[in-house]
Amino acid sequence: MKVVELAGGVGGAKLAEGLAAHLATDLTVVVNTADDLELYGLAVWPDHDTVAYTLAGLDDEQRGWGLRDETWAVMDRLADLGDDPWFRLGDLDLATHLWRTERLRAGARPTDVALGLRAAMRIAPQVLPMADEPVRTDVRTDDGWLEFQEYFVRRHQAPTVREVRFRGIESARATAEVLKAMGAADAIVIAPSNPIVSVGPILALPGIVEGLATARARGVPVVAMSGIIGGRALKGPADRMLAGLGHESSALGVARLYADVATTFIVDAVDADAVPAIEALGIRTVAFDTIMSDDEARARVAGDVLRLAVHPGA
Amino acid sequence: MKVVELAGGVGGAKLAEGLAAHLATDLTVVVNTADDLELYGLAVWPDHDTVAYTLAGLDDEQRGWGLRDETWAVMDRLADLGDDPWFRLGDLDLATHLWRTERLRAGARPTDVALGLRAAMRIAPQVLPMADEPVRTDVRTDDGWLEFQEYFVRRHQAPTVREVRFRGIESARATAEVLKAMGAADAIVIAPSNPIVSVGPILALPGIVEGLATARARGVPVVAMSGIIGGRALKGPADRMLAGLGHESSALGVARLYADVATTFIVDAVDADAVPAIEALGIRTVAFDTIMSDDEARARVAGDVLRLAVHPGA
Repeated sequence: MKVVELAGGVGGAKLAEGLAAHLATDLTVVVNTADDLELYGLAVWPDHDTVAYTLAGLDDEQRGWGLRDETWAVMDRLADLGDDPWFRLGDLDLATHLWRTERLRAGARPTDVALGLRAAMRIAPQVLPMADEPVRTDVRTDDGWLEFQEYFVRRHQAPTVREVRFRGIESARATAEVLKAMGAADAIVIAPSNPIVSVGPILALPGIVEGLATARARGVPVVAMSGIIGGRALKGPADRMLAGLGHESSALGVARLYADVATTFIVDAVDADAVPAIEALGIRTVAFDTIMSDDEARARVAGDVLRLAVHPGA
Repeated sequence: MKVVELAGGVGGAKLAEGLAAHLATDLTVVVNTADDLELYGLAVWPDHDTVAYTLAGLDDEQRGWGLRDETWAVMDRLADLGDDPWFRLGDLDLATHLWRTERLRAGARPTDVALGLRAAMRIAPQVLPMADEPVRTDVRTDDGWLEFQEYFVRRHQAPTVREVRFRGIESARATAEVLKAMGAADAIVIAPSNPIVSVGPILALPGIVEGLATARARGVPVVAMSGIIGGRALKGPADRMLAGLGHESSALGVARLYADVATTFIVDAVDADAVPAIEALGIRTVAFDTIMSDDEARARVAGDVLRLAVHPGA
């Protein structure tokens, strides 16, 4: 069974780890690239790396991001030089960025660099950037437009987001690899990532909505999961962001955003009473425990997702 | 007494440390930039950093290059990823490259970045790149043209050098800061660095020879030191490089290269018998112990150089 997951960072990574336990090389994770940034001349891909590190079993589960056994010699020395890095890159993490930047500067396509890194890290699933062209999320706040990581990391997601734009998205498009994986998929899963800034750019990318429509037309289920549980995001600012943009911060609010693309929607058991309202949108909806707190839970949730994809009526 | 030193890497750094002990902020070190390279998208300036680290008292005297108490977490992780970095950058050293690259990418002039790093490292002398425009040394070997660091680090200086070129030098020129320091100098010292690939690019840079001529015309001594002692380079391939290019690998061979620009030449005591032949070139020549094996020796040698500059007839 071949599955494509559309994923942002942490939520996408947890689900990817669960799915990989069942699917190994039959899983392709398409990651959001609109959070990517250049720091110190280095290409930093936060969502890609969160997924890749998690699939490589190298993620720091305590800290919730970055690599296990990370050290901070480079950043500490930058602090000695008077810099106050707001986006801290650990030593081991930096090696990834050096590895990648060297190849990108030599002219390699981002997709090929990602596939090379997958091989170097011995990751079974494919982890594909959604596009090879740069796309960048900006958010408009009461202080004006901010680049995404400026808002997310430097300002700790404190400002209210009034508007979101994906710079460069018109001239970007889903890669041939992404479209091929979607074309071969038996199921497509939209991860419980932030629907606005993680899944949003993927769905806004030229080629993706068309690819999803083609998949649905040949009977492939598109299963979306709510990252909002009991009205709150498990991690990150998705709940406040939904509210700031005039959406409802609830499973129903998320389902409305996916109503045109998903055939099936999964809410957490605590939101079971939202099922009728979501089904009224014309999406088959199922409620079960979706919290992926450890490896076992990730595999169980992913197993439930896959069963639902195989037997959408069950 | 204001002094300008024209310097390459290790030999230039040792002399700079000795001169700084006498002159502090009255010393300006103009460093070769033709060894600079881009690695992993980062701006790496080997000669500048060797001088800066040494002047900051952070150099690793045992290893002979790089920073004391260096660690290698990033390079070790790159090796885990399957890379075999031929140009190894330590974690602390990397912080310098990140600091610099961030500012260069933001559009700062290399000279301003160097001055900022001087402030961040609390270095008394100015350490100035010779030019803001990129200049790159290539060497022709029996295997064809190689970029300098490819020859120097990757191939361990094994191939015989048949020809040297400085790419970009026609469109580069000595910075305003370099020319201003030369214009204000009471003495100019050419370090005992490699005359071909360390001092060579500085002398070949448009503006430098004219600046030296102007200085000499107003009575400023230009004191050059031989980096060849007893026919051998203390460090590096200068001796083999001189021979490969058809020069004599000796103090006299070096003196011939500087005959047009230097007023005064210093050879090591072991080469005292070369003094008459060098004076026959029209350069006043002095022999004394020039080996700078420790801090005390560096200050002593620098003191002798400065005395010679003040009293050229002594």
